[in-house]
Amino acid sequence: MDEAELRKLLEDIKKQKIDVDEGVEALKDLPFKDLGYAMIDNHREIRVGYPEVIYCAGKTVEQVRGIVEFMLTKENNILGTRANEEMYKAVKELCPYAKYNEEGRTITIRKKEQEETDSYIAIVTAGTSDIPVAEEAFETARIFDNKVKKVFDAGVAGIHRLFNKMDIIRQAKVVIVIAGMEGALASVVGGLVDKPVIAVPTSVGYGANFGGVTALLSMLNSCASGVSVVNIDNGFGAGYLASIINKL
Amino acid sequence: MDEAELRKLLEDIKKQKIDVDEGVEALKDLPFKDLGYAMIDNHREIRVGYPEVIYCAGKTVEQVRGIVEFMLTKENNILGTRANEEMYKAVKELCPYAKYNEEGRTITIRKKEQEETDSYIAIVTAGTSDIPVAEEAFETARIFDNKVKKVFDAGVAGIHRLFNKMDIIRQAKVVIVIAGMEGALASVVGGLVDKPVIAVPTSVGYGANFGGVTALLSMLNSCASGVSVVNIDNGFGAGYLASIINKL
Amino acid sequence: MDEAELRKLLEDIKKQKIDVDEGVEALKDLPFKDLGYAMIDNHREIRVGYPEVIYCAGKTVEQVRGIVEFMLTKENNILGTRANEEMYKAVKELCPYAKYNEEGRTITIRKKEQEETDSYIAIVTAGTSDIPVAEEAFETARIFDNKVKKVFDAGVAGIHRLFNKMDIIRQAKVVIVIAGMEGALASVVGGLVDKPVIAVPTSVGYGANFGGVTALLSMLNSCASGVSVVNIDNGFGAGYLASIINKL
Amino acid sequence: MDEAELRKLLEDIKKQKIDVDEGVEALKDLPFKDLGYAMIDNHREIRVGYPEVIYCAGKTVEQVRGIVEFMLTKENNILGTRANEEMYKAVKELCPYAKYNEEGRTITIRKKEQEETDSYIAIVTAGTSDIPVAEEAFETARIFDNKVKKVFDAGVAGIHRLFNKMDIIRQAKVVIVIAGMEGALASVVGGLVDKPVIAVPTSVGYGANFGGVTALLSMLNSCASGVSVVNIDNGFGAGYLASIINKL
Amino acid sequence: MDEAELRKLLEDIKKQKIDVDEGVEALKDLPFKDLGYAMIDNHREIRVGYPEVIYCAGKTVEQVRGIVEFMLTKENNILGTRANEEMYKAVKELCPYAKYNEEGRTITIRKKEQEETDSYIAIVTAGTSDIPVAEEAFETARIFDNKVKKVFDAGVAGIHRLFNKMDIIRQAKVVIVIAGMEGALASVVGGLVDKPVIAVPTSVGYGANFGGVTALLSMLNSCASGVSVVNIDNGFGAGYLASIINKL
Amino acid sequence: MDEAELRKLLEDIKKQKIDVDEGVEALKDLPFKDLGYAMIDNHREIRVGYPEVIYCAGKTVEQVRGIVEFMLTKENNILGTRANEEMYKAVKELCPYAKYNEEGRTITIRKKEQEETDSYIAIVTAGTSDIPVAEEAFETARIFDNKVKKVFDAGVAGIHRLFNKMDIIRQAKVVIVIAGMEGALASVVGGLVDKPVIAVPTSVGYGANFGGVTALLSMLNSCASGVSVVNIDNGFGAGYLASIINKL
Amino acid sequence: MDEAELRKLLEDIKKQKIDVDEGVEALKDLPFKDLGYAMIDNHREIRVGYPEVIYCAGKTVEQVRGIVEFMLTKENNILGTRANEEMYKAVKELCPYAKYNEEGRTITIRKKEQEETDSYIAIVTAGTSDIPVAEEAFETARIFDNKVKKVFDAGVAGIHRLFNKMDIIRQAKVVIVIAGMEGALASVVGGLVDKPVIAVPTSVGYGANFGGVTALLSMLNSCASGVSVVNIDNGFGAGYLASIINKL
Amino acid sequence: MDEAELRKLLEDIKKQKIDVDEGVEALKDLPFKDLGYAMIDNHREIRVGYPEVIYCAGKTVEQVRGIVEFMLTKENNILGTRANEEMYKAVKELCPYAKYNEEGRTITIRKKEQEETDSYIAIVTAGTSDIPVAEEAFETARIFDNKVKKVFDAGVAGIHRLFNKMDIIRQAKVVIVIAGMEGALASVVGGLVDKPVIAVPTSVGYGANFGGVTALLSMLNSCASGVSVVNIDNGFGAGYLASIINKL
Repeated sequence: MDEAELRKLLEDIKKQKIDVDEGVEALKDLPFKDLGYAMIDNHREIRVGYPEVIYCAGKTVEQVRGIVEFMLTKENNILGTRANEEMYKAVKELCPYAKYNEEGRTITIRKKEQEETDSYIAIVTAGTSDIPVAEEAFETARIFDNKVKKVFDAGVAGIHRLFNKMDIIRQAKVVIVIAGMEGALASVVGGLVDKPVIAVPTSVGYGANFGGVTALLSMLNSCASGVSVVNIDNGFGAGYLASIINKL
Repeated sequence: MDEAELRKLLEDIKKQKIDVDEGVEALKDLPFKDLGYAMIDNHREIRVGYPEVIYCAGKTVEQVRGIVEFMLTKENNILGTRANEEMYKAVKELCPYAKYNEEGRTITIRKKEQEETDSYIAIVTAGTSDIPVAEEAFETARIFDNKVKKVFDAGVAGIHRLFNKMDIIRQAKVVIVIAGMEGALASVVGGLVDKPVIAVPTSVGYGANFGGVTALLSMLNSCASGVSVVNIDNGFGAGYLASIINKL
Repeated sequence: MDEAELRKLLEDIKKQKIDVDEGVEALKDLPFKDLGYAMIDNHREIRVGYPEVIYCAGKTVEQVRGIVEFMLTKENNILGTRANEEMYKAVKELCPYAKYNEEGRTITIRKKEQEETDSYIAIVTAGTSDIPVAEEAFETARIFDNKVKKVFDAGVAGIHRLFNKMDIIRQAKVVIVIAGMEGALASVVGGLVDKPVIAVPTSVGYGANFGGVTALLSMLNSCASGVSVVNIDNGFGAGYLASIINKL
Repeated sequence: MDEAELRKLLEDIKKQKIDVDEGVEALKDLPFKDLGYAMIDNHREIRVGYPEVIYCAGKTVEQVRGIVEFMLTKENNILGTRANEEMYKAVKELCPYAKYNEEGRTITIRKKEQEETDSYIAIVTAGTSDIPVAEEAFETARIFDNKVKKVFDAGVAGIHRLFNKMDIIRQAKVVIVIAGMEGALASVVGGLVDKPVIAVPTSVGYGANFGGVTALLSMLNSCASGVSVVNIDNGFGAGYLASIINKL
Repeated sequence: MDEAELRKLLEDIKKQKIDVDEGVEALKDLPFKDLGYAMIDNHREIRVGYPEVIYCAGKTVEQVRGIVEFMLTKENNILGTRANEEMYKAVKELCPYAKYNEEGRTITIRKKEQEETDSYIAIVTAGTSDIPVAEEAFETARIFDNKVKKVFDAGVAGIHRLFNKMDIIRQAKVVIVIAGMEGALASVVGGLVDKPVIAVPTSVGYGANFGGVTALLSMLNSCASGVSVVNIDNGFGAGYLASIINKL
Repeated sequence: MDEAELRKLLEDIKKQKIDVDEGVEALKDLPFKDLGYAMIDNHREIRVGYPEVIYCAGKTVEQVRGIVEFMLTKENNILGTRANEEMYKAVKELCPYAKYNEEGRTITIRKKEQEETDSYIAIVTAGTSDIPVAEEAFETARIFDNKVKKVFDAGVAGIHRLFNKMDIIRQAKVVIVIAGMEGALASVVGGLVDKPVIAVPTSVGYGANFGGVTALLSMLNSCASGVSVVNIDNGFGAGYLASIINKL
Repeated sequence: MDEAELRKLLEDIKKQKIDVDEGVEALKDLPFKDLGYAMIDNHREIRVGYPEVIYCAGKTVEQVRGIVEFMLTKENNILGTRANEEMYKAVKELCPYAKYNEEGRTITIRKKEQEETDSYIAIVTAGTSDIPVAEEAFETARIFDNKVKKVFDAGVAGIHRLFNKMDIIRQAKVVIVIAGMEGALASVVGGLVDKPVIAVPTSVGYGANFGGVTALLSMLNSCASGVSVVNIDNGFGAGYLASIINKL
Repeated sequence: MDEAELRKLLEDIKKQKIDVDEGVEALKDLPFKDLGYAMIDNHREIRVGYPEVIYCAGKTVEQVRGIVEFMLTKENNILGTRANEEMYKAVKELCPYAKYNEEGRTITIRKKEQEETDSYIAIVTAGTSDIPVAEEAFETARIFDNKVKKVFDAGVAGIHRLFNKMDIIRQAKVVIVIAGMEGALASVVGGLVDKPVIAVPTSVGYGANFGGVTALLSMLNSCASGVSVVNIDNGFGAGYLASIINKL
């Protein structure tokens, strides 16, 4: 409820169109749906510009199904992340045109077609093993109607591969760099472009990689400016933020 | 054995009602039952106000069964935490009215009904995935006869959901806040209530969440006062402490 | 502004005692004072039951002075924590009856006398080196008018010292246990009392103590129930929470 | 050297306007100035859109002076971060209109006036102690000609202070949130705006704050989307990235 | 080869009983058996007083079998630690009187009976879940012919259980204390006995226990003197060291 | 493309043997093969002296198969590391003379025989459990045609075993030391040889070994000089670097 | 109060030599001296065999002086550790024959001469920089009347230095090994002696030494048996434990 | 004493040129000088090819002076690392031609001139702040008579600076890469050269750099092969190892 609506409400009370009890009720009532185990945030699109997304990990198949069932009553596109195949099957029963990206582990349901952006997001990975995170970012950016270009396996061990794709990267409006191991790709790209770089450390690697911590720290300490970081393996977060920036 | 009993014992020795050997024995003898693999602390209710609780993790089914078997000879309610279904089945054979909370992984046996408290404990979770920890806290608080109210999925990403439930939270005598990820809910609640807040970090999250460490650190560093913290996923500890405070 | 006041406001609008612009203003206006570098939370006492406390570390002497100067215009007691002597001198110029606890590094200004609580808080330390943290807790509890009893240097290396003071500890309504090194005292006390135990790890120790982390972890993993933990060296947090509990 | 220039060069060789040795030289020659202890990146503005910035920490006063001396021969604005007063004095001798922000520890030299952006960057801090980092971000954003609005001391312990300033924050094109302790402010703001949020953890706090690590982890695990993170206390990095985004 | 043997060898060379080549050979040749994948240290009993022990983790069943096969050609007792049942079966085929301690996961083969020590080792555990580590220590101490007494489940949450067994503990020549969670038992025992205490942290616990790190740090920081620590879950190391001390 | 080739290209443009478009193309074109999910670095042998190696972990069987299929079209030897048996089977279908080292988990395909080096690499392990890492190093060194000598199970607990093999170690041109637990072997060997020592920490051990971190830190802090370290369990990296040094 | 005394007390009550009030008093009264800021444990020598030791770090000069003043009223030797020169001067005023070991930072006051042990403790350091910790261990062992032999700077980088001193080390009853950096000396010595080895990690080193953590972890993971570990830089703890073992 | 000398000794005993006692003595006597606080390893040059180096940190000025005084009696060049100016002054009194590198904090005394190597070591730093570590490496390499070339401030944020110097780097026999922050330079260089790369992480950076840990981890996880790592800020170790490799 924004200030205009508040003013309208108070005017209505003043004009006695609505009585005080209704006013109290209206001011207390907030737009979410309580399912008991989940309070779905319907108000979210108005507030932050995007519908709520279902983070499926740690939820039961029944809970995912219940949340999707409710969301299907609204006119929003639906995105579920960290979903397993069993969840997907349960959702598909509710909605036959639900799609599953096996590598990215996302469920998407497209209920309305919107125009694609003119500018695009570049998603760059250091290696082949980083692709699942890239796919999660990709599906996220796509469900919010962004144009996306992919550059995969362009890590700094063979830096000419990166330079070869530099045009694609430089012309993007925002760049997502996804890398495990030492995550050096974020710094190298950050030093070569004049666009925001969203770095996603991945848990790819072994030994002193510590499940992505090395890449995370490396990216946080990037000697290149213009680089910010999201959580390890957080393809969704990167895709979401890239979408916000791409639409500015 | 409190000071009055000590005085009584010494009087009896003085009056030669009991002889010195008995006195030595009495002063050495302490109220616990030694099962070999476990020494059950019968004295505990007198000392700290609550019967002993069985922490089932790391015990064999046989050990859990043996401990319950002994405890059933006493007139206390019984609570087993971190119990798996196999343990529950073994216990149910001993006691048909034993109950199992699948989400909370608790076994409860209610041998005596006591009056429920007037004041209540509010259990608030940030997300749906935090519910198992909340259920452990709930069963713990309930076995000790506390009134409890639940507010689930009220995390700060959609803070209006929290504000909508604020009345329930504010009127509690003590509040348990359960959150994973960055655990910000504890600070926000702590800044809004004038009651003790027991924060429970959960291992919900991924990447740099480190199995709940991030939420733990976040809660320990809460900028709001009146917040204290128990171990990661320690629903039992929170429920137990809340019960002590609720009964003050 | 609680629900009753909101209702009153709306009634007044309805009755046209106040006009809509005033209503909008009233609903937007929140009770804090903006000093530019600090927004002082005047509303806090109503909301969480205690006036705001000044955390002096990281503030300049001028900032501390400015905040105190404003707070002196209100009728609340004032507490500054982590204050150095220079800050104290600046405050004393504003208010001659300000007091400084050198060990606890607190500034206190008592503007109103309230009745002391009947029940008391016990503050127990493991060693002599933990006393500064204990003094911070003490001053915090005192400014909020709690009765407090101190038991210092009662660590488990000579556990009979603890047992000797057990009566004082057992009769408290809430116990603060302050310990560095391995922090075992919290578990031992927790196993002996039926009251809430607030454990404060201190940075006392060396080597693998890691500035209090060992004591912190130890206390979080206490095998005794009824123990919750605040941040390392956070005497203020413990005193504040103990005060809330003591007044329940 | 972009593709057009490369083509021009090759055409010139073909037309024998320039000879092969010159061509080799031109293709090998890159636009930086080698001072021995530093290679100043003159090419940077062309490549990433901003002139090079001097990170003064770990450099001697003589080195800072030498770098500024060279940079003054170019027509760019100059920014030095993490500068101490002695460095400032050395720079001021070279350039009387150099300015020093004592809190933010920045040196700025403005050699050309450019038009200020229409859209603005909001810089929000949780507490007073976070202001030095905010000032570094502010000076960085300003030297790149961004409009900036400040909201200081709006942490979640008194969340109404934040809500009071929500309009300023919501109307920004990009928001910088600066917080120490548990860093919850980033999640709360992230849940309320539809703009990119750049979170800066600060080393403000004590104990289990670990010099900002807690806030860092908290922000990386933010339950709100649209939040990305830069290094601890990295006001410069946040200001720089915000500037890139603000100018998209 | 000790100094006497060296002298003998040189005398023999001098007397030309053996020639120089033999001398070189003898001085180069050291008493171990090379199996290719393992060099068995036969010399060990002479050097450090105990035969070599087989650490089975990370070895294949074939390797364990091969090592035992060789060792059976010598007249030493054999101890295998961290052995699984499959390894035990392979060993049992070689030697029918091999024994397996399922909780302690040890294989023992007793080839010679030696006199049991008069003095004894006390093995104390905090909880039931610590028993597997205790059993490994027990089997180790036993294979080296030590008298051992066990006190299980005597943790500080019910400290009277410990005091009840204090006589057994005090009369030991050396005490092994095994505890997980916060490991406070080591400090409490260390403060009550005048014998060496070998503390073994276990990985029992959850959350901020970090697989035994909390107990480890706690024990290293013990406020009681006379306590030293071995690796997490290292029952063998504790039993071995206790045996050395018990035989001094 | 080295400087000579660049000069040749420009000469050709000048002489109008090739036209400008071709020149631009040639300068942009870089020698790698883009498979979509992987960009194979064909240029690598020219640049760093070795063909690309396939790191199989995190790749699907299909991806490994596809990469090998392409690489078989070139005349290089092929090495796949961290390969599982399923991958090997897929590769063997493509190339019947592919070999699998089960302990080292490597796939090797030898397409050209080159002369073996005269000097050799010594691979020393502390224990039997370190052999898998040693085998990975061995296969790596062998595919690059190095002579290799193995010394396994020579840890410092029985240091005479090491001394017995010292001649083999001292005469190597470069020494790989592989050890888990406390990794002391690297320091001891480093203090006894005048050749480069490449230390490989392994994840062998338990408790406070932290998956190889202890050995890693130990080796980084070696009191002996001439020791450098690669990642935990990184047999490939050690074998590769040893090969470079062995061929200097 | 041991069992014999307890029996005597009860007999006296029975015989009415002392009355019940006295009995209660006697059983409540424990042998420590409460100085307010410290409770001095007089009972300690009876209980654990050694008088209390003053850990001076974190105490004020006044507190140290007060504790020594009281202790001088008893007939025990006095040891203060981590003492600075100022503390020493304050103590020397009280007791002219107090001694200060500048490297070890200990204050010692010898009030009674006892017979020196026949067997001895060997204190071995890896380097010169470890000597301060060795001196603390030395003074501790000496105040408890142990014979001690020192072997300094015998680290494994030049392992022949260690072997040269092996006789001294082998003939000790217990060996203290003190090392920083990678702490490998503990493993090497542990593999060569048949006596208990007490390993003391020191904070000597830099970089990834982490103030002694590397040496600590290394020693905990020693591949040699018979090694246990005390806290980083804890020369006192090692000397104390060595004394207990040396006197067994 | 190598095998030839051993054979000679035994021959002499056989021929009765020397008697058995002398033989025992010779075999026990090892070439080091015991100064009490330090055992100087004279044998080192024979064993590992280089004279001993003085690590001055943690030593007193007197100790450094005493060690140098002894070493001056030998005909070796002398290198002291981590030396402060006071140490240098003390050394200069002993030897007027001692030199001090203020940035690298090394003392060098050149007593014999040897031929410089033909091949050279390249020392590359990412930034200006890494120069002190580079200077330590430089002095170490120089005292061992290596030719060295420096490339300073060539970090990946402006990667063209690196490419410009690539010829110098590629033609070295061994490359030392020194970088703080995220240490990406090691990976980029490693992917471009066919020579061994010794990576030195530095403690340059702030926040989540953790005193060089980020660069260390990054380098250990380098996606480029041929890279090994020494301890944080360990310029000496890198220079020493580079010298060994350069002379192979």
